[in-house]
Amino acid sequence: MTTPASEIRLPVDVLRRFISEVLRSHGVRDEHAEVTSQRMIEADLRGVHSHGIVRLPPYSHRLDAGGYNLDPDVRIDRDTPTSALIDGDNALGHVVMTQAVETAVAKARDVGMAWVGAHHSNHAGAAGVYAAMAAEQDMIGIYMAVANANHMPPWGGSLPLLGTNPIAIAVPAGEEPDVVLDMATTVASGGKIRLQIARGEPLPEGWMVDHEGRPLTRPSAADDGFMMPIGGYKGYGLNVIIGLLAGVLNGAAFGHDVVDFNADFETPTNTGQAFFAMRPDLFRDLDSFKTEVDRHVRDLRAVPTMPGWEPVRLPGEGAASQQQEVAERGVPIGDGLLKRLQGLADRHQVPLDAPSTP
Amino acid sequence: MTTPASEIRLPVDVLRRFISEVLRSHGVRDEHAEVTSQRMIEADLRGVHSHGIVRLPPYSHRLDAGGYNLDPDVRIDRDTPTSALIDGDNALGHVVMTQAVETAVAKARDVGMAWVGAHHSNHAGAAGVYAAMAAEQDMIGIYMAVANANHMPPWGGSLPLLGTNPIAIAVPAGEEPDVVLDMATTVASGGKIRLQIARGEPLPEGWMVDHEGRPLTRPSAADDGFMMPIGGYKGYGLNVIIGLLAGVLNGAAFGHDVVDFNADFETPTNTGQAFFAMRPDLFRDLDSFKTEVDRHVRDLRAVPTMPGWEPVRLPGEGAASQQQEVAERGVPIGDGLLKRLQGLADRHQVPLDAPSTP
Repeated sequence: MTTPASEIRLPVDVLRRFISEVLRSHGVRDEHAEVTSQRMIEADLRGVHSHGIVRLPPYSHRLDAGGYNLDPDVRIDRDTPTSALIDGDNALGHVVMTQAVETAVAKARDVGMAWVGAHHSNHAGAAGVYAAMAAEQDMIGIYMAVANANHMPPWGGSLPLLGTNPIAIAVPAGEEPDVVLDMATTVASGGKIRLQIARGEPLPEGWMVDHEGRPLTRPSAADDGFMMPIGGYKGYGLNVIIGLLAGVLNGAAFGHDVVDFNADFETPTNTGQAFFAMRPDLFRDLDSFKTEVDRHVRDLRAVPTMPGWEPVRLPGEGAASQQQEVAERGVPIGDGLLKRLQGLADRHQVPLDAPSTP
Repeated sequence: MTTPASEIRLPVDVLRRFISEVLRSHGVRDEHAEVTSQRMIEADLRGVHSHGIVRLPPYSHRLDAGGYNLDPDVRIDRDTPTSALIDGDNALGHVVMTQAVETAVAKARDVGMAWVGAHHSNHAGAAGVYAAMAAEQDMIGIYMAVANANHMPPWGGSLPLLGTNPIAIAVPAGEEPDVVLDMATTVASGGKIRLQIARGEPLPEGWMVDHEGRPLTRPSAADDGFMMPIGGYKGYGLNVIIGLLAGVLNGAAFGHDVVDFNADFETPTNTGQAFFAMRPDLFRDLDSFKTEVDRHVRDLRAVPTMPGWEPVRLPGEGAASQQQEVAERGVPIGDGLLKRLQGLADRHQVPLDAPSTP
């Protein structure tokens, strides 16, 4: 990835501390600030910059507006050896989902697999970050979430009742990077569309349609357009299923009940997410599984490309290569974000250290 | 759905008995013939005619060639309270996956959820049939399979190492039809493409590309083309993940190891599938869950359509309406299929009853 002239790089450690201190200055508990800054920076480390530090200003805005509970009692409502329902008590979503992953992984260690649902949670950043946490512990991990804004109608419909509802699935590999799929079920995520708008560049055809179903490419018209699902009615179907499993099953918001977190900063979102963890050695020896995953990853990567295409990559491979690059060179911060972070630094009297030279 | 002039309708009971008797005549055990004919007809009842009785001639061809084990010992290799690995011993796939669903549902009743993997299995027909079996028992069901032929390269690649790898997910509703997503992770399934070829109609753009990545629409060139994933690299990623979870995790075929069941009728396919079942009442009262699913289904269905679009439907809604129509009027059988079934009837001395008048 090339860094445009208008971007600087800030070191990962500096940003992690900065996020944490800004959150603490808002009254967020120390441990919650630590966990949230860690998960946010992990998104940047995976190259998912649309879900990393760029989200600090809107989280800060929501904290200002009283949209979060600063003294939450994140607790387990329902508990069985294979499952838990976590009540996030309107805490920061990263805190809730970190507990969900840890709970699922601990239960899976005991009984082979576990599913943990969450309600009264909030936006938790990058889906892949949570799935990857399971793979790092040699488990299969699946994360699903109901998105915090509805921009997609049901297939053929003209009223947006669905969000980008993402899913991430991680499978541990051996010497190869873990296979980590992290995708919105819409063609483009909200972050990608916002980036295109910010740059004033036309939206690629297929991302959005207008209210008559015609392709919408003018970035200035995007706010009034509808997002499109991947694969037409298939992606729509998968989107609805994720909404039912991550939202409705947990008594969390879906459809008409979703609170648009870009428009309403006060009402609790009652965000729903789900996490599933499973031990591969239920089915075969862990080492033989990881060795076979490696073999298939290499077979797929070795496939020659069609003329003009980039080399074949596996899901999560880009994130793995970003990890090293971002850790060494820092997180790319564009002009606009830098100004907003400096604004937060001034206001909260938290130093945002000088940029490292790239 | 309109019935073209060249189609007749044959009653469900007649066809179920016919399939069962043809299989028995091949030497398939009575109970396995019964289960297989039941699952195949359920595909037709759901309107998934590409995976119903149309598959009897190729199954028969494979039975002739000795590609199935007629005296299989379908057994559980590995067993825990939450999981099982089934060795299908090269039985008919419908037999293996029926046992997988029953095992997963029984375990989920005891411990909340269960994942059952299968290896040494075979093509099992329509994914949605198995997921729906769980929903009928008020459980969430997820089915995944490695397809039995590779026609899709990894994203950007020029060698097809991936199949249509389908996934089906069912969520029980209350008064509304259960929500059942059943999809290939390729834009078009093999069955849809074969249907277009048989009709000599051009393939819609986006279904396939040639070896240079250019859109392929000529049906006569389809055999040499590559299938495309839904949502580009996203569908490719989901396809690989399904291959790892349904195939590699169970020690079943994936990638280079897949046996093309349309070209090789003798070599055991070592097909891999996975089934997951979960009780909704781990997270909330079952009735309240089903009531809420109903509410959201109705909210989505009530959305007005964009100009020129069909009314909004939920995944599985088409199957539910087909069920009644097919049960009443019979399964539509085209000219070509009718001839092949008559051939089987003659050869096996099994009567294929006269068609009912539509």
